[in-house]
Amino acid sequence: MIPGRPVAVSGARFRVVYRVAERIAASEKEALDRAREIAVEQTVEFPIALLPPGELRDRIVGAVEDLDRAPAGWRATISYAVETASFELTQLLNVAFGNSSLTPGVRLERLDLADALLRAVPGPRFGRAGLRAALGVPRRALLGTALKPLGLSATALAELAYQFAFGGIDLIKDDHGLTNQPFAPFEERVARCVGAVERANRETGQRAIYAPNVTAVGDETIRRARFAKAAGAGALLIAPGLAGLGLLAQLAADATLGLPILSHPAFQGSYVIGPESGISPAALFGQIARLAGADGSIYPNVGGRFSLSEAECRSIATATAEDLGPIRPSFPVPGGGMRLERIPELLAFYGNDVILLVGGGLFQAGPDLLENCRAFRQMIEEREDR
Amino acid sequence: MIPGRPVAVSGARFRVVYRVAERIAASEKEALDRAREIAVEQTVEFPIALLPPGELRDRIVGAVEDLDRAPAGWRATISYAVETASFELTQLLNVAFGNSSLTPGVRLERLDLADALLRAVPGPRFGRAGLRAALGVPRRALLGTALKPLGLSATALAELAYQFAFGGIDLIKDDHGLTNQPFAPFEERVARCVGAVERANRETGQRAIYAPNVTAVGDETIRRARFAKAAGAGALLIAPGLAGLGLLAQLAADATLGLPILSHPAFQGSYVIGPESGISPAALFGQIARLAGADGSIYPNVGGRFSLSEAECRSIATATAEDLGPIRPSFPVPGGGMRLERIPELLAFYGNDVILLVGGGLFQAGPDLLENCRAFRQMIEEREDR
Repeated sequence: MIPGRPVAVSGARFRVVYRVAERIAASEKEALDRAREIAVEQTVEFPIALLPPGELRDRIVGAVEDLDRAPAGWRATISYAVETASFELTQLLNVAFGNSSLTPGVRLERLDLADALLRAVPGPRFGRAGLRAALGVPRRALLGTALKPLGLSATALAELAYQFAFGGIDLIKDDHGLTNQPFAPFEERVARCVGAVERANRETGQRAIYAPNVTAVGDETIRRARFAKAAGAGALLIAPGLAGLGLLAQLAADATLGLPILSHPAFQGSYVIGPESGISPAALFGQIARLAGADGSIYPNVGGRFSLSEAECRSIATATAEDLGPIRPSFPVPGGGMRLERIPELLAFYGNDVILLVGGGLFQAGPDLLENCRAFRQMIEEREDR
Repeated sequence: MIPGRPVAVSGARFRVVYRVAERIAASEKEALDRAREIAVEQTVEFPIALLPPGELRDRIVGAVEDLDRAPAGWRATISYAVETASFELTQLLNVAFGNSSLTPGVRLERLDLADALLRAVPGPRFGRAGLRAALGVPRRALLGTALKPLGLSATALAELAYQFAFGGIDLIKDDHGLTNQPFAPFEERVARCVGAVERANRETGQRAIYAPNVTAVGDETIRRARFAKAAGAGALLIAPGLAGLGLLAQLAADATLGLPILSHPAFQGSYVIGPESGISPAALFGQIARLAGADGSIYPNVGGRFSLSEAECRSIATATAEDLGPIRPSFPVPGGGMRLERIPELLAFYGNDVILLVGGGLFQAGPDLLENCRAFRQMIEEREDR
């Protein structure tokens, strides 16, 4: 038996929905046992028989609230006292899936957070409406692209940024592979690309913005974000799988930064591609990216170079806008090998509340990059009026 | 065609070994195509035909160095210019596996880093020898345990810490689920547990150390680490899957902190449990944790509550000590449901260069916690003389 007693908890609880694969739980009884194991593992992580009766057993240990049949398995809903999540994003994710990420056959399907937690995480500072206002684009879908390839000089990347902005792209982000390489050091690249986009904006009267990649080691990420802000960048790109979801949350929470944030899925793929394990794309790229503060969440679209299904892409887009109380809706940002000829299909699928990210495809559409950008913009504007 | 030319690269390259599943590459030709796709995806991420001839194509794009048959697939070795990794851990991981983490059937097997990168990452500040010196334990295996369950007060956790230290446990870490909950707020918990372990050390003449969990949102992690250091904690625990591998690297690189670091696998399981995809346990819990600066890397041992195989556990332990030039060897820290009766088997498997982590098992061995700790210690000391 262990000593001491916990202090009282408020009674407010949040819920996490898991899918338990049939492979590890053939019967309802086994599925319930599995769900109870998850509830213990994610909280006290302690032999339950050795817990003293009372609050620890009754309210700190997760509680299995529901168990239903699901395709190829079971859907288990477990509730946790909000206090276990410590009102911080990292610990919320730890309670939701920390150790159970190590269990084959257990998948985090979705989060149903309590108000106390929704108020404790940053969420998007701009959200859909705020980003539209910043860009001056009230209705149509937004156009995004990436500065690449890795290996170009800062001057060459800035020249591309100019052409993209002049050609009508709204959001010009660094490729997520551009960090601080000697070819195009961060500070020089940011200064040049900001300048190039500002020049294009003066010429076009539009408000394209440049989002440098600030992904780095620890608080160097924050330092780069501050540099980008001071240099006049209009947004930030971060790969939370590399920098940490907590650093995304810190950037979003920092009012002195106050820039829209795009999150990139690099190094996060392993969470979403195991069909039985890991985290559902809707939870990771939809809910979690949004809770952490991404105004736009980039993910690999169906039919590109990667592997998400149409249903998964739909579920991500839905999760970016579902009602989360004080948390603003974010933009889905499908990418990963999109080509211009797919734009009408993408618009039909996502509607106008989307940032369509076309990278290499903008170069492949024809020999004149500026013309390709204009063609992309025109395809978007044609749809706007429908 | 894209504008500009990259600046010259040094010629130094690092290598990444991938396993490509037979399912996505039935023939050697297909495997080579897949490997070439990885080499492009992880670098220029750009239509190769549109790259200008010269350095971009020849030295910035990854190069397939080797392709061999492997069980159920292929082993592809790809080299990258060290400059692409920007001499920072986060970008190194991005080049190694950023976007390819999204590709089912592609697994990161191991890293073979060049000197220029080994010098650029922190590695363990203490390593095996340094941690042994700090604990005053030159030879035998080290004993570790966790303060839990979540829900106890700081006073109750400190009482447990006292008993663990008095009973002969070397390393007493917070459970990774203890962060800053109202039951046991971080600062109070750290102060009380440091005091309790110091009191036990005065009584025993030994040097047990307490490792508080500093995992938090962004640089709050750093703030907690500084508080822990000032309060007299002897080590730190961090879950890089939650805080970010970059924050682990920052803690390790910070000479003003100068504390041994244990890394915890929470929220990282999805990388290692997909047999075809993700990252091999040896690369993630062995190589990457060590490169990032963990003096001890916790992982779920074979036969516990989780799923790694004996061969995978062996490969992790090997990776903590393989020659990495300037990077010190770290300790493997098998845990995850170990019981006292398994200690002889674990010692036979790992030898003395291991931290054996027994959590709930210390409570299950009998009604007297102090006696259980002493039994654990005795089992370790008996082995020392062999």
